[in-house]
Amino acid sequence: MTNSVRSLLIFLCVFFSLKSYSDNGYDLWLKYQKIENKALLNTYKNTLNSISFTGNTATLNAAKEEIVRGLSGLLNHEYTISKAVASTNALIIATKEHIDSQFTEQLKNDFTQLKKNGFIIKSITKKNRKYTIITSNDELGVLYGVFNFLRLIQTHKSINDLHIVDAPTIDIRLLNHWDNLDRTVERGYAGESIWNWHKLPDFIDQRYIDYARANASIGINGTVLTNVNSNALILTPQYMEKVTALANVFRPYGIKVYLTARFSAPIEIGGLSTADPLHKEVQQWWNDKAKEIYSQIPDFGGFLVKANSEGQPGPQNYGRNHVDGAKMLATAVAPYGGIVMWRAFVYSEHDTDDRAKQAYTEFVPFDGQFPDNVIIQVKNGAIDFQPREPFHPMFGAMPKTNVMMEFQITQEYLGFSTHLVFLPKLYQEVLSSDTYVKGKGTTVANVIDGSLHTKKITAMAGVANIGSDFNWTGHPFAQANWYGFGRLAWNPHLSAKEIADEWLRSTFSNKDEFVEPMTDLLINSRETVVNYMTPLGLHHIMDTNHHYGPGPWVSNLSRPEWNPVYYHKADSLGIGFNRSTDGSNAVSQYSKELKTIYNNLESCPEELLLWFHHVPWNYKLKNGDTLWNNMALTYQKGVNEVAQMEATWKMMEPYVDNQRFQEVNMLLKIQLKEANWWKNACMLYFQQYANLPFPNGMEKPTKSLKYYQSLKFPFAPGIRPQWD
Amino acid sequence: MTNSVRSLLIFLCVFFSLKSYSDNGYDLWLKYQKIENKALLNTYKNTLNSISFTGNTATLNAAKEEIVRGLSGLLNHEYTISKAVASTNALIIATKEHIDSQFTEQLKNDFTQLKKNGFIIKSITKKNRKYTIITSNDELGVLYGVFNFLRLIQTHKSINDLHIVDAPTIDIRLLNHWDNLDRTVERGYAGESIWNWHKLPDFIDQRYIDYARANASIGINGTVLTNVNSNALILTPQYMEKVTALANVFRPYGIKVYLTARFSAPIEIGGLSTADPLHKEVQQWWNDKAKEIYSQIPDFGGFLVKANSEGQPGPQNYGRNHVDGAKMLATAVAPYGGIVMWRAFVYSEHDTDDRAKQAYTEFVPFDGQFPDNVIIQVKNGAIDFQPREPFHPMFGAMPKTNVMMEFQITQEYLGFSTHLVFLPKLYQEVLSSDTYVKGKGTTVANVIDGSLHTKKITAMAGVANIGSDFNWTGHPFAQANWYGFGRLAWNPHLSAKEIADEWLRSTFSNKDEFVEPMTDLLINSRETVVNYMTPLGLHHIMDTNHHYGPGPWVSNLSRPEWNPVYYHKADSLGIGFNRSTDGSNAVSQYSKELKTIYNNLESCPEELLLWFHHVPWNYKLKNGDTLWNNMALTYQKGVNEVAQMEATWKMMEPYVDNQRFQEVNMLLKIQLKEANWWKNACMLYFQQYANLPFPNGMEKPTKSLKYYQSLKFPFAPGIRPQWD
Repeated sequence: MTNSVRSLLIFLCVFFSLKSYSDNGYDLWLKYQKIENKALLNTYKNTLNSISFTGNTATLNAAKEEIVRGLSGLLNHEYTISKAVASTNALIIATKEHIDSQFTEQLKNDFTQLKKNGFIIKSITKKNRKYTIITSNDELGVLYGVFNFLRLIQTHKSINDLHIVDAPTIDIRLLNHWDNLDRTVERGYAGESIWNWHKLPDFIDQRYIDYARANASIGINGTVLTNVNSNALILTPQYMEKVTALANVFRPYGIKVYLTARFSAPIEIGGLSTADPLHKEVQQWWNDKAKEIYSQIPDFGGFLVKANSEGQPGPQNYGRNHVDGAKMLATAVAPYGGIVMWRAFVYSEHDTDDRAKQAYTEFVPFDGQFPDNVIIQVKNGAIDFQPREPFHPMFGAMPKTNVMMEFQITQEYLGFSTHLVFLPKLYQEVLSSDTYVKGKGTTVANVIDGSLHTKKITAMAGVANIGSDFNWTGHPFAQANWYGFGRLAWNPHLSAKEIADEWLRSTFSNKDEFVEPMTDLLINSRETVVNYMTPLGLHHIMDTNHHYGPGPWVSNLSRPEWNPVYYHKADSLGIGFNRSTDGSNAVSQYSKELKTIYNNLESCPEELLLWFHHVPWNYKLKNGDTLWNNMALTYQKGVNEVAQMEATWKMMEPYVDNQRFQEVNMLLKIQLKEANWWKNACMLYFQQYANLPFPNGMEKPTKSLKYYQSLKFPFAPGIRPQWD
Repeated sequence: MTNSVRSLLIFLCVFFSLKSYSDNGYDLWLKYQKIENKALLNTYKNTLNSISFTGNTATLNAAKEEIVRGLSGLLNHEYTISKAVASTNALIIATKEHIDSQFTEQLKNDFTQLKKNGFIIKSITKKNRKYTIITSNDELGVLYGVFNFLRLIQTHKSINDLHIVDAPTIDIRLLNHWDNLDRTVERGYAGESIWNWHKLPDFIDQRYIDYARANASIGINGTVLTNVNSNALILTPQYMEKVTALANVFRPYGIKVYLTARFSAPIEIGGLSTADPLHKEVQQWWNDKAKEIYSQIPDFGGFLVKANSEGQPGPQNYGRNHVDGAKMLATAVAPYGGIVMWRAFVYSEHDTDDRAKQAYTEFVPFDGQFPDNVIIQVKNGAIDFQPREPFHPMFGAMPKTNVMMEFQITQEYLGFSTHLVFLPKLYQEVLSSDTYVKGKGTTVANVIDGSLHTKKITAMAGVANIGSDFNWTGHPFAQANWYGFGRLAWNPHLSAKEIADEWLRSTFSNKDEFVEPMTDLLINSRETVVNYMTPLGLHHIMDTNHHYGPGPWVSNLSRPEWNPVYYHKADSLGIGFNRSTDGSNAVSQYSKELKTIYNNLESCPEELLLWFHHVPWNYKLKNGDTLWNNMALTYQKGVNEVAQMEATWKMMEPYVDNQRFQEVNMLLKIQLKEANWWKNACMLYFQQYANLPFPNGMEKPTKSLKYYQSLKFPFAPGIRPQWD
């Protein structure tokens, strides 16, 4: 390299390091930074001398632009695209019917086993000439193949002898945005909604395009734009033209748009006097509405419905049931290939039974009664996205019904956007849980991917953590949860460690000194947040409404099951929710094998102990120490682990740009502060009942319980807006 | 340049043009792009061979970082800073006491005339050795000098023979943020508040630093962080530590923090039973509160107060007056050098008199009674930031009282962030208005800068248009209004054309083919918005509450003066608000010269005709045509002018990055759509009264009045949140 080039590059580094905002995290995992390792760079360049690309439809052009953008950045080299196939070392990208016939033979077998939207990435050598081929039966498969190929290079994998045949194992992989029309985001901690309804349809924010790119890169193929606590206005012509504009932006990237359907919409915007699903006029209104929507958005995905849940209207308002309600909407969208996702997140203030049992009790009897284009959306646990819950007993319990997974990516109960917690580890824990419904080894993942009971539709949804913050997710590491959700929706059998490794390399650095310690940090972060918030099966003891920080003492809310005391049931005898056969008997909603394991205090996993049992303060755990001491020391362990995370991160400074390094630094300090807050507030509160001293090894609180109880956060983010 | 350099540069251009988000406008006018003109670049480089910089206090380090960042970018050259003065072609930066003694003689006279926070930029030649000096009596002056010097280079001015001695003509130059604690922004159209209260004080967003840089670069030295419709919580310890964190970020840039004081705070957060300003306990509470604030923020600026206005609490709730209220707060902050800005924006639903008269009537009698550290904040017009108003009659009417200007930068009544309108032209129009209070040529600017009647404090405030959008202001051109406000606060006698030229060159391009047509476009845009919204003196006929789009028909609001019909008074005879001596007599609040001009239908400027007179539909204007026809054709003219703006912008594509070009393109289409909406809705509505046909030359509306009246925008941005 000439001196002038070197000095220019040096200058650029100086210059761009000054322009720190340019590393604000907006690029997500699609940074495409130039590969520093010269040897590796040259190997890649040699293998990818030229690009042959065929096709110029919207989706193929997206793939074309991405491969150019990606390779230009990573290999620091200008590529000119042509259809012609160079003599050797060519990258060839096309759908099956446009692949140069000379390769047909070598791809035949791969194509036979290739599933919908899947892709083939294959290195082929003919007469000492090397070719790398990215192909698929369909255009979207090509786009997925391009992103996958770029990931190989971003993560410094060898591309010399590739033979990858991959396809999504779940049909519908979507984000649920709890975004309101006023741009507030329920449980949103990364700024306001990225949907600028006021400026739509005429103003197309660059962000919409990059949102689609990011989702396509991890295989997400659907997005529900609006909050499940929905507003009927989204279905009016004024808003439908805005929705249509977004659908048009997302279409080339294979992303379908879905909306939440307000059950009472026929009254609120239709002028009808009822929303009774058995009422002909109501059915007709929804049929007409569907027709109107599909005339503007031919590939509209369908509706997501939260009915008769937390005050939302639904069929029960008219003495009908969930099947009646779902049928009506399913009938409306069926002619156009649309689906209805009906949420099972229901619990009633009038039902005195254990809240954890109510969804199962209400839905399982309906098994087999829902239409084929309806899928029941079930949260990963029976309560509500807690740091740890056993998997929801509905998984595996409705063999004749489409059932999908709802994970939460936004950290409603896990520290908002100031705590670093790697959720793919949590997702994997749920997906790999054994349901035993068809004997050992029948996991939740097998239920979700349809392999356990054959299903008409399979789907996985994640409640988005996306907002208008520069870096999309508030915490730079919260991007990993969006990324990881997408990867697991594509293949629920992937390992969290693999995902962490991929994401760290694509987003920050490929240096082993960075990747190895940070992979451990990510993997451990999942248990750490449980340790300092809700150890040993505790749950839902967050402060109410905003769910920010500890509030185990809250007991004054109208609905009993909204009060933390309902969940921990601490008293002089002990603590925990007795869900065993001599308690609420929630254990009986699981397969008999699990029922036995959970029901028995000895066999119940200690990490779920207080979920299933009310346990004496002095009960001895496996380590021989009492429950009280274990609780104290686990809280302390969580705090210490955060301190360790902070120390590890400090050592990462050489591998990270200044802005993101400082941001994470500040955020880990907040996390440590709040981990201590959790430990002190909870231990002081529970001590009133345990009446036992804090064990050695637990740092004593410096403030009083009264102080922690006095803290108020009227403007904590993510609260449901008052117009709702 | 070697081929490798060239190809690398070509690649970089390709690459960065792909990374379109990297030109998202975040840089504002501080882009510091490399100068393409080789000759010019070399001249600059030769003159600025080295930099000698002395001092390393927080403010001087900010200046140092900025000069390095700026020159590295503009001159594409690495500078290393040292104290040593090179033999020649050196840039020398230091405060007076650190300037190399060899230059003392040549700077003596300049220093004698140098005012506070002013700076000297001077080219000095000694024995054929050239030096460029940036100096000041104080550190902030050096920072201002650095920004000013960088602007010379950004705008391609010659720096060969510089002799600039400049200083702010107004003491306090501040932004008013109408930002709420829930991050909504009242009248905000660029996303949510940039103040992330939840993450403060521990998380310092890079944006806070760049906000301070941008403001310092135009001389703004204060910011009111909170909405004038205020919340007392901001004064609690929980929030004060957050405010303190921001004050610490802004301090090096010479920016003081101010807060809005909720008059009822002593009750709401102080636990008192009253907020009566004559009540000892209340006074003591404010004294203690001030002491507490200043113990954390020694340079806290003071309070901004909206009292007994639009439902806000104030002294009148206790039978006291504005002087009583202001005195109490002024006494509390006086010991620490703080000030109180007391808003004159008052009008009562119980006062049947013309709303335009009420502020004057209520405040002028108090002239001379306010303490020295109180300044009365008066909006530029007597109604409320309309597209055009005559200047507020209070300017010049209170010779013995500190009076400051309040402009609105955010476009509440001027098309939100989708309309391009260059407000410095509006500001200049107001500032250069002749009050005649001391005879001809005594302008509003002379009142504001204290030259007309000597004042203890002079100040100018602008209601910020800043939000969390990437480009800060929503519309790329709305940045010019923030910039222009700052420049006019520094010197109210600057010309709008000068400001437009500066801003265009720093923000987009120095190419004449761009600067010349775009300067005209900016200057004309101010009249264009008046033409298609409120021609000939019409005002406040926007739809109510959100003020988005036309609503001349609205007449059902509880308070008469909240209804557009109150302002246009259209009837079968004519249209306009009679404020002449035989009307509301508002004209008499102006000097006798102006009273005569405004009072007489013939001498009243036609641009203010319907502000001061109720005029017959067939009244002949100076052009010989009727009022009705003139109204129709002016609306049409406004529409046509927007179409012309769109055409001009299309021709600018070669000079603008792709992202901003497309954004402005889309926004101008929206502006054209909405200009037509205004024209059609207003003309159809007024036609009911005028009973006259639309003249030739006016495009006929394609939709009915009913249609326009049916439009509803429940989620238009900027509405006051419901918790308020």
